[in-house]
Amino acid sequence: MSNKKYVYMFTETDETMKNLCGGKGANLGGMTKLGLPIPQGFTVTTEACTLYYENGGKLTKEVIDEIETAFAKLEKITGKEFGNPQNPLLVSVRSGARVSMPGMMDTILNLGLNEIVVAGLAEITQNPRFAYDSYRRFIQMYSDVVMGLSKARFEEIIDEMKREKGIEFDTEFNAHDFQEMIAKFKTFYKKELGKNFPDQPKDQLFGAINAVFQSWENPRANYYRKINDIPSNWGTAVNVQSMVYGNMGDTSGTGVAFTRNPATGENKLYGEFLMNAQGEDVVAGVRTPAPIAKLNEILPDAYHQFVEVSQKLEQHFKDMQDIEFTIENGKLYLLQTRNGKRTAQAALRIAVDMFESGMITKEQAIMLVGPNQLDTLLHPQFDQKVLKTAKKIGEGLPASPGAACGKVVFDVDTAIALVKKGEKVVLVRLETSPEDIEGMHVSEGFLTARGGMTSHAAVVARGMGKCCVSGCKGLIINEEKKEFTLGGQRFTEGDFIALDGSTGIVYGQKVPTVAATISGDFEKFMNWCNEIKTLKVRTNADTPKDARQGRAFGAEGIGLCRTEHMFFETTRIKAMREMIVADSVEERRRALDKLLPMQRSDFEGIFEAMDPYSVTIRYLDPPLHEFLPTDPADIQEIADELGISYDKLSAKITSLHEFNPMMGHRGCRLSVSYPELAEMQTRAVIEAYINVKKRNPNYAAEPEIMIPLVGDVKEFKYVKNIVVKTADEIIAQSGMTIHYQVGTMIEIPRAALLADEIAQEADFFSFGTNDLTQMTFGFSRDDSAVFLGHYYEKRVYEFDPFAKLDQHGVGKLVSMASKLGRGANEHLHLGVCGEHGGEPSSVEFFHNVGLDYVSCSPFRVPIARLAAAQAAVKAKKNK
Amino acid sequence: MSNKKYVYMFTETDETMKNLCGGKGANLGGMTKLGLPIPQGFTVTTEACTLYYENGGKLTKEVIDEIETAFAKLEKITGKEFGNPQNPLLVSVRSGARVSMPGMMDTILNLGLNEIVVAGLAEITQNPRFAYDSYRRFIQMYSDVVMGLSKARFEEIIDEMKREKGIEFDTEFNAHDFQEMIAKFKTFYKKELGKNFPDQPKDQLFGAINAVFQSWENPRANYYRKINDIPSNWGTAVNVQSMVYGNMGDTSGTGVAFTRNPATGENKLYGEFLMNAQGEDVVAGVRTPAPIAKLNEILPDAYHQFVEVSQKLEQHFKDMQDIEFTIENGKLYLLQTRNGKRTAQAALRIAVDMFESGMITKEQAIMLVGPNQLDTLLHPQFDQKVLKTAKKIGEGLPASPGAACGKVVFDVDTAIALVKKGEKVVLVRLETSPEDIEGMHVSEGFLTARGGMTSHAAVVARGMGKCCVSGCKGLIINEEKKEFTLGGQRFTEGDFIALDGSTGIVYGQKVPTVAATISGDFEKFMNWCNEIKTLKVRTNADTPKDARQGRAFGAEGIGLCRTEHMFFETTRIKAMREMIVADSVEERRRALDKLLPMQRSDFEGIFEAMDPYSVTIRYLDPPLHEFLPTDPADIQEIADELGISYDKLSAKITSLHEFNPMMGHRGCRLSVSYPELAEMQTRAVIEAYINVKKRNPNYAAEPEIMIPLVGDVKEFKYVKNIVVKTADEIIAQSGMTIHYQVGTMIEIPRAALLADEIAQEADFFSFGTNDLTQMTFGFSRDDSAVFLGHYYEKRVYEFDPFAKLDQHGVGKLVSMASKLGRGANEHLHLGVCGEHGGEPSSVEFFHNVGLDYVSCSPFRVPIARLAAAQAAVKAKKNK
Repeated sequence: MSNKKYVYMFTETDETMKNLCGGKGANLGGMTKLGLPIPQGFTVTTEACTLYYENGGKLTKEVIDEIETAFAKLEKITGKEFGNPQNPLLVSVRSGARVSMPGMMDTILNLGLNEIVVAGLAEITQNPRFAYDSYRRFIQMYSDVVMGLSKARFEEIIDEMKREKGIEFDTEFNAHDFQEMIAKFKTFYKKELGKNFPDQPKDQLFGAINAVFQSWENPRANYYRKINDIPSNWGTAVNVQSMVYGNMGDTSGTGVAFTRNPATGENKLYGEFLMNAQGEDVVAGVRTPAPIAKLNEILPDAYHQFVEVSQKLEQHFKDMQDIEFTIENGKLYLLQTRNGKRTAQAALRIAVDMFESGMITKEQAIMLVGPNQLDTLLHPQFDQKVLKTAKKIGEGLPASPGAACGKVVFDVDTAIALVKKGEKVVLVRLETSPEDIEGMHVSEGFLTARGGMTSHAAVVARGMGKCCVSGCKGLIINEEKKEFTLGGQRFTEGDFIALDGSTGIVYGQKVPTVAATISGDFEKFMNWCNEIKTLKVRTNADTPKDARQGRAFGAEGIGLCRTEHMFFETTRIKAMREMIVADSVEERRRALDKLLPMQRSDFEGIFEAMDPYSVTIRYLDPPLHEFLPTDPADIQEIADELGISYDKLSAKITSLHEFNPMMGHRGCRLSVSYPELAEMQTRAVIEAYINVKKRNPNYAAEPEIMIPLVGDVKEFKYVKNIVVKTADEIIAQSGMTIHYQVGTMIEIPRAALLADEIAQEADFFSFGTNDLTQMTFGFSRDDSAVFLGHYYEKRVYEFDPFAKLDQHGVGKLVSMASKLGRGANEHLHLGVCGEHGGEPSSVEFFHNVGLDYVSCSPFRVPIARLAAAQAAVKAKKNK
Repeated sequence: MSNKKYVYMFTETDETMKNLCGGKGANLGGMTKLGLPIPQGFTVTTEACTLYYENGGKLTKEVIDEIETAFAKLEKITGKEFGNPQNPLLVSVRSGARVSMPGMMDTILNLGLNEIVVAGLAEITQNPRFAYDSYRRFIQMYSDVVMGLSKARFEEIIDEMKREKGIEFDTEFNAHDFQEMIAKFKTFYKKELGKNFPDQPKDQLFGAINAVFQSWENPRANYYRKINDIPSNWGTAVNVQSMVYGNMGDTSGTGVAFTRNPATGENKLYGEFLMNAQGEDVVAGVRTPAPIAKLNEILPDAYHQFVEVSQKLEQHFKDMQDIEFTIENGKLYLLQTRNGKRTAQAALRIAVDMFESGMITKEQAIMLVGPNQLDTLLHPQFDQKVLKTAKKIGEGLPASPGAACGKVVFDVDTAIALVKKGEKVVLVRLETSPEDIEGMHVSEGFLTARGGMTSHAAVVARGMGKCCVSGCKGLIINEEKKEFTLGGQRFTEGDFIALDGSTGIVYGQKVPTVAATISGDFEKFMNWCNEIKTLKVRTNADTPKDARQGRAFGAEGIGLCRTEHMFFETTRIKAMREMIVADSVEERRRALDKLLPMQRSDFEGIFEAMDPYSVTIRYLDPPLHEFLPTDPADIQEIADELGISYDKLSAKITSLHEFNPMMGHRGCRLSVSYPELAEMQTRAVIEAYINVKKRNPNYAAEPEIMIPLVGDVKEFKYVKNIVVKTADEIIAQSGMTIHYQVGTMIEIPRAALLADEIAQEADFFSFGTNDLTQMTFGFSRDDSAVFLGHYYEKRVYEFDPFAKLDQHGVGKLVSMASKLGRGANEHLHLGVCGEHGGEPSSVEFFHNVGLDYVSCSPFRVPIARLAAAQAAVKAKKNK
């Protein structure tokens, strides 16, 4: 038996105990400490929930005993007694997890009633209507939440009675009606379950606590956790609280209010209430509640008290509060307070207002906005009015946010042709490939049948800031016939569809978009982030356009410039292909010579766009076969272009086939095989830099040359030697003093394990966490979508390690390599490029590991900046 | 400047200093200490060689100074003086690496001669013929070795002079002839190199030392190192030794002898000598040398002295010696001794004889046989007489040893048909695949155009003990036409070829084989290994036949029983395919029910064959698409068989396509998706075990169930729960007391990193070093052959990490996981399965890391046993 304490009275807790007591329980404790009017009670901890599941879905003896003890104390505090008709203690039983999961968990009110107690309650309150109303509510809730009987069946009974009695609202029922209703409910209960509704208050109590713990695993809760990355082992707490009644008559009521407007952030109480009502009535929409300001007219004392209390709570919690209250016979009680959910716009305004009013510090202000929330501010959005009635035809993964609407196209050529005519297009594909890059550039967004959140389409989309819905369920594409079916509807080329990249929903019609506006608050807020964060944020950019976009969003350099994307353009791919099919070093050099001026001019453009910041250029990375066609007609065309036979080209393509291209001839392995490739790329980088430097001698940032896929220091050294020899010759000829850096990606587990050796030769490391995740887990991101679904379902993994860094496993390698690397080379510069660099929890990890920068796609730069600032604040706090 | 000493006199060294002074130098020191007649000299260390290369291929000042000092000492010891015609010191300069690299390094004799010194030498020896013979030899050797002039050109000059003078042998030249020859040599030298032959002895000396260091990197040396796994950073030492002369007349001579017969191991002096000869004459084949026993007739004193010395050396070095000697005017000198190279048969006999004569201990005896040598004793071999004249048509990688001869076939069906007719066949393929397994079983051996030492064909071949030559250069196969060309010759189905799996050579004709004999010495020797080793050796076996073969070779259990190979058999693959295309759990269960009795009976056979040893059974591992056809005709046939449409099957196959199958839906991921698979396999294992146990209640070894490809403890636990639930039910029904173990492969880097967590749930770990190597390096074994060739060439990697464990990188993970695992679970049983378990250097590493067992293919079991015993001896010594 452990020494853990599983049950706490509200008087024993406060808001710092959220992990143990859940948000609701902890805040009830906090409010009790503040001296606010709180109906007293106790909290059964989240650890009791975990224990419950470990115990096979049953409460343990020790937890039962603690609950009994706490209940006895509660009887003493309230001076009431459970099951005593002369002075009955009634309670509510509510769930309360660490973070608010609205609507997920089920609540039971008025627990403790039975035929005897309800009669007593009617007598002592002199309010039989209230008493029987409470009892019928309790039966309804208990039957639904604890016993799983359908709510609708009870509503049917009520509706039938309304028809019989010719009344419209619940409030028109009298005590007799409710007694009749109670009898009907009980009959129904017995018929359905074959036993009587429980009479013993203690049986009711433990039944309800069990039900709350059970509800932690209900499908809604699981779904909410999945989409919000909440681990299932957190568990929920249970709050048992003595009842107060908003349904005692015309001076009673219940309501919900936000201390500020959650949609706009305006600093004005925002909420609603309902008189003579209990619990769910406000949100259930049975009667229409009144705006909170109206309360001033009905019960001015209670209203003023509430305004005062709400300001006090906001001051205390330093955040906008979402408060539930009940007024019992004119007296105000608070049932719950929590930090209110809000839109991104509201979050920014509240943070800025609270700082400017002196309520909070800048550090506190930046903690008030969720980094991922910013995403909605950065992409164009659909017109919500049209969207409400738009025809939803399917749903896929929300792979890249934004709103895209255009004509359906199935191939790159048509996309380009239509765009040239001024049309907007949406590219629909089984999956995209690097050859589609031009078509993707001109499209509004991409819809794919295959692939996950990190498929080619998704990665490119986020990089370009385009909208993408990937892995769309039920999407059947016939690319040959240029048609697809989805949601039972057939679409052909030219039909309009619309994609919502933030929800993954596909609409089968035209939906207009509106441009996102970035308010002044946003800029102000982002500047605070820069003041606070220590981690630099760079952007991944392959073109001057992307580079400028990244800078506009505050990037402090380029952390990853992929050189291969440059080679896919129509004018260049021919020389690239010549290079690949070359039979000798001489032939290869000839082809590379054609690529040199193009690549050099790309780099010039990028250096100029980023001046005065650093640019990290990664050398050719993908397997060469990606540049070659697979379709016989295409092969013939290219063979003709290159002036070689079909058979020769076909044989070359076959010889480049790989069983596992991800683990094949790519990255620095290409330069070990063909050193002339690294020579050409070095020449392009250094000559471009010299040209830019000639035009602007003040450009001081050194070019950073990055060798990908290194697994051994000798391998790195081999390629580095080629780079240094080539670069030094060019620099010597230029007569200028030029410094440059040569570093490597750490993306192969072996490189991480032996990072100390590599660090002795490298100027910098950039963690390529995409590949590192693939190799460390041993599954490829393109193939794992098939089975990761089963893994999430069965709770083996709880999140996608390609979207969110696996800090436990992959993170161990990152941390190990950082320590080994810095230990061997104190000047080593450490960064991360790839998708994780723009994901908030990963950014926090990278901050804590001590990296110098993260790099992410332009549209995630603001998110990374905020995440980095929050990480700095948290780290300071934890010191 | 370092404090290292780079030059040692022979009087300062002994045989323990091999790493520093090379084998030759260290042994010359050792012999000096023993008081044997050694011409004195000094050794420039291997570290000086490394420094030489670090210094850009030049001797450093400090090394030059040390050589000068040592040389002065040598002059003092010998009482002779360099360049002094009255009393000239002449020296030999020889290479000498840590391990003997016969024929790799070049030797220079008679260094220190010039026109003046040679005249003096002629005078003081009163032997002008000897003096001028020595000088012309020196010029020849120096020109070749130091200056790179072709030996053949000098031989031409000599041959021309022989023709002119009408003589047959060198011994017929007189002093005048040699003077004429010297003049011709010098003229030729000047003509070729544009400068005079060096006259200054010191210039000659440093030129020679430079040349030795240079020769460390010549192509022959590199090749020898590559095939013998000798790291290039070991370097060579240089030995500078004062000359003695076997060419001083009829009481002088030179020879080479082994203390025992190197072919058979017979304990009898074995060697040959040549009178009035120097250096290379004995082995050069210019004159035919006489057997060593003849020396007794010519110079009995010298002979007896040599016999005595050779016994003393053998006693001293506790090994058969290979000794070079020179007799100068009747006096015996020893120039070198080293452990002699020998055949596997001889090695065994020598080890056994030396132990039985009391000369050495068992521990010493087992160190006298190279583990890989045993390989030649375990496979049938070609008749060497026929082989000498056989037509060699090509060469590939010696992927699996043995000798195979038969008719060429290109497909499995023909192979089976021909074998049924009593023919022997050799399967020739681009590369084999799991579908070929039956055809491979019946073939003598496999020849493939693609794939490395660990390709499918190679792995299967070694597992089956079949011969395989893989990745054969220049092999062009047309499988459709059933023909191939190699070495300019065309072969069609039915033509005979022969493969030597130990050399990789392919012969274009029939070559008969002889069965290998295992002598009594072999058995005795292997029993000693078992007494000494602590590491258990298990075998990988998928069938009762393999299991019996492994036991015959001494396996102590099965470390890896792959269940997938069982499913490829014709009668079973149908049910397997039904399982794969199943649309529902029910359909899948129906197909699995058909597989259950087959799998159960396989396991019964294997348990019975291994009783009383343990069997580790690995659950289904490969991606499912491996079981499905790709050819449209095959797809149609199978669709018909399964009673589904072509389109449905085709769609299923497409949906199973993976971009990187190695990192796809395989291993335990299959059981997470389809728990019924693990259920069926568990049922088969446990029911089979119960059946065997019923027949033999004494069978005590617990069945070991192994879950492959685990990356996280939750994943392992998920599958383990299925296993335990299924197994416990069956056991409970049986009424017997049965224990079983559930463990996992550690083959995913993440599993190694988080091994402590997994160990808390697992009964055992088995390192799957094949996959672990792939993931840790980030290259697949099937694809890496293409670029690893470039890596070896460029010295980035020096060996194939799939053949020999990468102890530095992958080994770091193995070691880390072992420590973490044992730390978390002291009962954890640790082993390794896969190719590395039968590779000696890897076995030593696994012993040192503290594993409990290695497991390898049956034909490597004796090798692993010896390697394990040697590892135990070495570890004891290093304590």
